[in-house]
Amino acid sequence: MIRVLVWCENKQNKTDDAVKAVYPNGMHNTIADFLNADPEITAKTATLDDPECGLTDSVLAETDVLLWWGHIGHHEVPDNIAAKVQKRVLEGMGLIPLHSAHFSKPFKLLMGTSCSLSVPGFFREKLWCTLPGHPIAKGIPNPVDIEVEEGYNEYYDIPQPDELVYIGAFEGCRVFRAGCAYHRGNGRVFYFQPGHETFPIYHDKVIQQIMINAVKWAKG
Amino acid sequence: MIRVLVWCENKQNKTDDAVKAVYPNGMHNTIADFLNADPEITAKTATLDDPECGLTDSVLAETDVLLWWGHIGHHEVPDNIAAKVQKRVLEGMGLIPLHSAHFSKPFKLLMGTSCSLSVPGFFREKLWCTLPGHPIAKGIPNPVDIEVEEGYNEYYDIPQPDELVYIGAFEGCRVFRAGCAYHRGNGRVFYFQPGHETFPIYHDKVIQQIMINAVKWAKG
Amino acid sequence: MIRVLVWCENKQNKTDDAVKAVYPNGMHNTIADFLNADPEITAKTATLDDPECGLTDSVLAETDVLLWWGHIGHHEVPDNIAAKVQKRVLEGMGLIPLHSAHFSKPFKLLMGTSCSLSVPGFFREKLWCTLPGHPIAKGIPNPVDIEVEEGYNEYYDIPQPDELVYIGAFEGCRVFRAGCAYHRGNGRVFYFQPGHETFPIYHDKVIQQIMINAVKWAKG
Amino acid sequence: MIRVLVWCENKQNKTDDAVKAVYPNGMHNTIADFLNADPEITAKTATLDDPECGLTDSVLAETDVLLWWGHIGHHEVPDNIAAKVQKRVLEGMGLIPLHSAHFSKPFKLLMGTSCSLSVPGFFREKLWCTLPGHPIAKGIPNPVDIEVEEGYNEYYDIPQPDELVYIGAFEGCRVFRAGCAYHRGNGRVFYFQPGHETFPIYHDKVIQQIMINAVKWAKG
Repeated sequence: MIRVLVWCENKQNKTDDAVKAVYPNGMHNTIADFLNADPEITAKTATLDDPECGLTDSVLAETDVLLWWGHIGHHEVPDNIAAKVQKRVLEGMGLIPLHSAHFSKPFKLLMGTSCSLSVPGFFREKLWCTLPGHPIAKGIPNPVDIEVEEGYNEYYDIPQPDELVYIGAFEGCRVFRAGCAYHRGNGRVFYFQPGHETFPIYHDKVIQQIMINAVKWAKG
Repeated sequence: MIRVLVWCENKQNKTDDAVKAVYPNGMHNTIADFLNADPEITAKTATLDDPECGLTDSVLAETDVLLWWGHIGHHEVPDNIAAKVQKRVLEGMGLIPLHSAHFSKPFKLLMGTSCSLSVPGFFREKLWCTLPGHPIAKGIPNPVDIEVEEGYNEYYDIPQPDELVYIGAFEGCRVFRAGCAYHRGNGRVFYFQPGHETFPIYHDKVIQQIMINAVKWAKG
Repeated sequence: MIRVLVWCENKQNKTDDAVKAVYPNGMHNTIADFLNADPEITAKTATLDDPECGLTDSVLAETDVLLWWGHIGHHEVPDNIAAKVQKRVLEGMGLIPLHSAHFSKPFKLLMGTSCSLSVPGFFREKLWCTLPGHPIAKGIPNPVDIEVEEGYNEYYDIPQPDELVYIGAFEGCRVFRAGCAYHRGNGRVFYFQPGHETFPIYHDKVIQQIMINAVKWAKG
Repeated sequence: MIRVLVWCENKQNKTDDAVKAVYPNGMHNTIADFLNADPEITAKTATLDDPECGLTDSVLAETDVLLWWGHIGHHEVPDNIAAKVQKRVLEGMGLIPLHSAHFSKPFKLLMGTSCSLSVPGFFREKLWCTLPGHPIAKGIPNPVDIEVEEGYNEYYDIPQPDELVYIGAFEGCRVFRAGCAYHRGNGRVFYFQPGHETFPIYHDKVIQQIMINAVKWAKG
């Protein structure tokens, strides 16, 4: 069994009606639920509300793959906890930062760059695969069609991915490296762009399958 | 001085009124002219009409960077000449395949893949830089706006570029890895997507500057 | 089950006493035997002696991963069969060229470079892992010690690997990129340097485990 | 003119007779002197002894390429200064960490990994080029022979280099990725392993030429 922890700051989940409408049980629980439906995965959740962000040494030691969703609360994660996550990835844990987690502390520490990007608005998106033999793309139609998503746009200040699996194309001639795989130490990182909090992205079966594939790839 | 050879099949240049309207002197001469305006570059041309395609051993030996535009005449380039170009790149010559030269024999030999892609129509394009510190992007605005171009679309069957410098975004959520840099042996290859024969792409000053930058990068 | 085909030119196996002493049943059968001991793998063999080199369309269509050992008979493989193997890799088959198969036709076609190297003699070798989280290195001690092997030395004229998993270090300050992973089209390639025909490399349990890992990685 | 700053912790330079014997004027001055002999370069120095480590905002703003040598004083560089160097690289400055600067704060911040390695002793080294067309290798013999150097050994915990230019081979089947080039933001990083403080490495004309080449490459 792959032991997954779905981490979410869990802030807009509680305060923003538009988010609650899409994820009445909290986005992290939605993600954990579809992951738990896979027979190879057992998923738990943790949030900013938990002591030590729910990321104690023992929890991290028992986590094979950590998914991370954060947005307005990045700064509330203490530096020492972010550093522990970074260290645990180098030891072998997988990390899957989602959407606005491009600015999460653990991802920025692991990339060494600013991870900045531009956010031009809301648009239809298509995800195009640039590595069709990659395990993360297995069984996924090409392109993946997303009716509406928050547009992220280049330049995205990240190291060149070891494996660029997906490029996101947004209406209006906009592009973003949307699925970026990295080897770091004994661990692996897969940044995945889709997942704005007010759209039902994580209810989409194809997006779910990409994330399940990513978990299996990231477990090492 | 960087010794450049601009190779063009020179077929539609002669038979297609729409092409002649855009490039009355031939596309290869237009390209050679703007390259020759750079004080570090001296450019000549060669075409399918020349004996041995204008690619004799002595010509290749005296070429630092070869630009290549072909479309409907790829098969008219003899295999042994394509193999000579491949060998000369491995010895240190730069190669810049343009637009439909994704299917040119020398490029396919150097990539080892099918270099296939899809061609969905004509669209507005924006080129987005994904490596802003790269010498090929020096002094180039981001994005580069192209009013209308033949759309090329992923999946583009190439090896992952060593340096992905540009992604092209086409209207309608379409994307293409448009500026792809490779090290091969002692030489360098830069595939550059813009340049459909019926649009005045190579008259554009920004496109010209990217190509001048590419020549300087590819000379090694 | 992963359907593996172990291809071997099977020439020195028949004529060279030193080779017969190490591999009395033929090197390809030794390799197939240890692969078949893995419950996820079913391995067959083919050689230059078979009609169409044993690489008919139907055989290739039913092969998930092809291992390839050749040395003095590279030129006896017809060009059209090499091209079929290349095409099948781009469709999704894994290819694992072993040792002197750096000069095999399918590998050269897929790399697009000369694949030349230098061969300075026979030396002790240590394989050092440069990507410890890679599935090919899973469970493998670091370094891997090989008592004596034919030394291969840089410059090795290959594209930069997508994933450089092993560097081989030979006595006398000699080095070689010994474990090189590539994505090509839908398929994967893993070049692996150890395996000179007069040394019992493929009887080594650690080398066998690397090759089993490589088969599982290359199956896609 | 390329404006270079050679930064050195300048500790063993003052206290260790073996170091003083090799670099009587201080290693940083030796490096600055040979760089200044190049007509395209103007080099200054800075050390831990200077206020703010000699790395004030105005100094950094006027620096195109920063060379960095540190060893026993990494922890004496304040975190905020290391972060300023990281930021300046992302804005476009080149950084060339030398030898034991693998553990310098700016390099670790930019890599996002532990940058750990093993140090097995003192050995003869040969540097082998794995990208012969790279500008850093221009005009350099292959291999580069170093009579004796401190051995560094894999696993070296760094991201895969964008361009692996040199592998160092040490007597006793030891290897190290010795010349590692990275694109980060608008800037470039070249880690270069040779340069133990008690050996006259930076007096070597070939090593000097590699460093001059690296400065020109890193200036962007």
